[in-house]
Amino acid sequence: MRELIQAVENYLAICLTDLSMPPRLRAAMNYSLLAGGKRLRPVLCLLCAGASCPSAERDATLTYALPFACGLEMIHTYSLIHDDLPAMDDDDLRRGRPSNHKAFDEATAILAGDALVTDAFWFMARAGENIAPVRVLRALSVVAEAAGGRGMVGGQVLDIEYTGLGLAPVRHDAALLTKLQAMQALKTGALFRAACIGGGILGGANEESLAALGKYAEALGLAFQIVDDILDETQDTAILGKPAGSDAEKGKLTWPSLTSLDESRERAHLEAEKAAAALKALTGPDADTLRDLALRLVNRIR
Amino acid sequence: MRELIQAVENYLAICLTDLSMPPRLRAAMNYSLLAGGKRLRPVLCLLCAGASCPSAERDATLTYALPFACGLEMIHTYSLIHDDLPAMDDDDLRRGRPSNHKAFDEATAILAGDALVTDAFWFMARAGENIAPVRVLRALSVVAEAAGGRGMVGGQVLDIEYTGLGLAPVRHDAALLTKLQAMQALKTGALFRAACIGGGILGGANEESLAALGKYAEALGLAFQIVDDILDETQDTAILGKPAGSDAEKGKLTWPSLTSLDESRERAHLEAEKAAAALKALTGPDADTLRDLALRLVNRIR
Repeated sequence: MRELIQAVENYLAICLTDLSMPPRLRAAMNYSLLAGGKRLRPVLCLLCAGASCPSAERDATLTYALPFACGLEMIHTYSLIHDDLPAMDDDDLRRGRPSNHKAFDEATAILAGDALVTDAFWFMARAGENIAPVRVLRALSVVAEAAGGRGMVGGQVLDIEYTGLGLAPVRHDAALLTKLQAMQALKTGALFRAACIGGGILGGANEESLAALGKYAEALGLAFQIVDDILDETQDTAILGKPAGSDAEKGKLTWPSLTSLDESRERAHLEAEKAAAALKALTGPDADTLRDLALRLVNRIR
Repeated sequence: MRELIQAVENYLAICLTDLSMPPRLRAAMNYSLLAGGKRLRPVLCLLCAGASCPSAERDATLTYALPFACGLEMIHTYSLIHDDLPAMDDDDLRRGRPSNHKAFDEATAILAGDALVTDAFWFMARAGENIAPVRVLRALSVVAEAAGGRGMVGGQVLDIEYTGLGLAPVRHDAALLTKLQAMQALKTGALFRAACIGGGILGGANEESLAALGKYAEALGLAFQIVDDILDETQDTAILGKPAGSDAEKGKLTWPSLTSLDESRERAHLEAEKAAAALKALTGPDADTLRDLALRLVNRIR
């Protein structure tokens, strides 16, 4: 997995350098795109492509899918830049550094996000140079749907709506838990799912395998979000790169606030196991890594 | 051409209704998407598709290309919503109504724009259900490049940069005119060009015809922008839907301020004729309409 992360980092580091654009715009895009992070979405995409193609074609397929996978990271990065804006979550810090609109200015941050999401589709389409266009177009369509109004952006709208309502967290309130889960499924889960299914499509997975990858991604996304909520409450600023407990302070619904820390941990482990089990029909080293990734994710909160 | 505009209006009117998304988000997207406008980019795309395909396939091709063409209008609409934001041009009026962030709020306007640009690519990809995916993917890639950091978004960055510099317009200053032209070529011209070339690709144009469509679009885009600058200075609020002379007030470089009204008119007519001439090798009713469209565009300022 380390080689995949490195391949993604290498591609991201140079992908905007040979494109002519206003220097300030490029600087703002790279400021956030190259700020680190786990590169989870592109890595998931590549692993699912690798788990879906004939093993003899694995290395070539992953190389060909790299621009597509990195497009997912651009979409993720744009969403973080826009989420941090004063009109949204109004966060001054991201990954321990000033957020984009603090390092540059608000107009530049909005436009850096706009350019990242648009250029992401250009990079995704580039995979069509080496992978059958019919596959690339279908995978791109899955990502567009997951990132748009019925997916990630819709989730952010719900997040702002619920936060604005000032809903007091009531432990074990079924209606609030349903709201939280639906919001997170859109805001975070949809792009995880598209990364996995998109990778599967690029690798040539059949419909049955795509359904399995979808189930894997849904459980993984939920586990990821619960872990994120737990870490927000329990870790300190130095590790988080932002003030601890900032979700609760903003009046956001979280898993620990609607259940308890223990129950949240338990649910995260359960979802990770569900994710791993969803891939039982898939064999080979990339499928093993996907299963392993789900289990290691929740070990951060053990 | 009236039927094409009507087909675009019909598609736009219903395209978001069957998609499940938060009601407030959908309302904000439709508020701006259905606010009228000339629908120039989708119409150009359809006409170029029609001018490029065998005449027996013309009607079917235009029907199949409709989701792609309407994706262009979504991208145009998102750019208007974001351009109007307080951090950008800070415009309270658009087409005679409150701009999106005034009718809703800033967060919703940012997210409505984000959803429109992302969903645009989903609609563009949908054309692949009936048109060869290799064509759709190439056309989509042309649009993504034109709309992103090297195109429209880059143009908006330059616009803000130049406006912020407070450059005093000096008549016939060659350096300023070069800046203005480069900025407008990105901010407006790039998407015009992508609409025409994208339509040509969907219709099956050969490389020679695509080059002609590109030349047509570049001259048309320039003529369009000069006409826009002239109207901003000479028409009153009721017709413009925004205060007249607002470009000059904001310290924006414009064609009349860097040349004169007469010279601007002359240049617009020259570019419209250049656009029409670029299509001399193309025959048929859609090519006729494209030539006619260029000449009628500048007749608004006669």
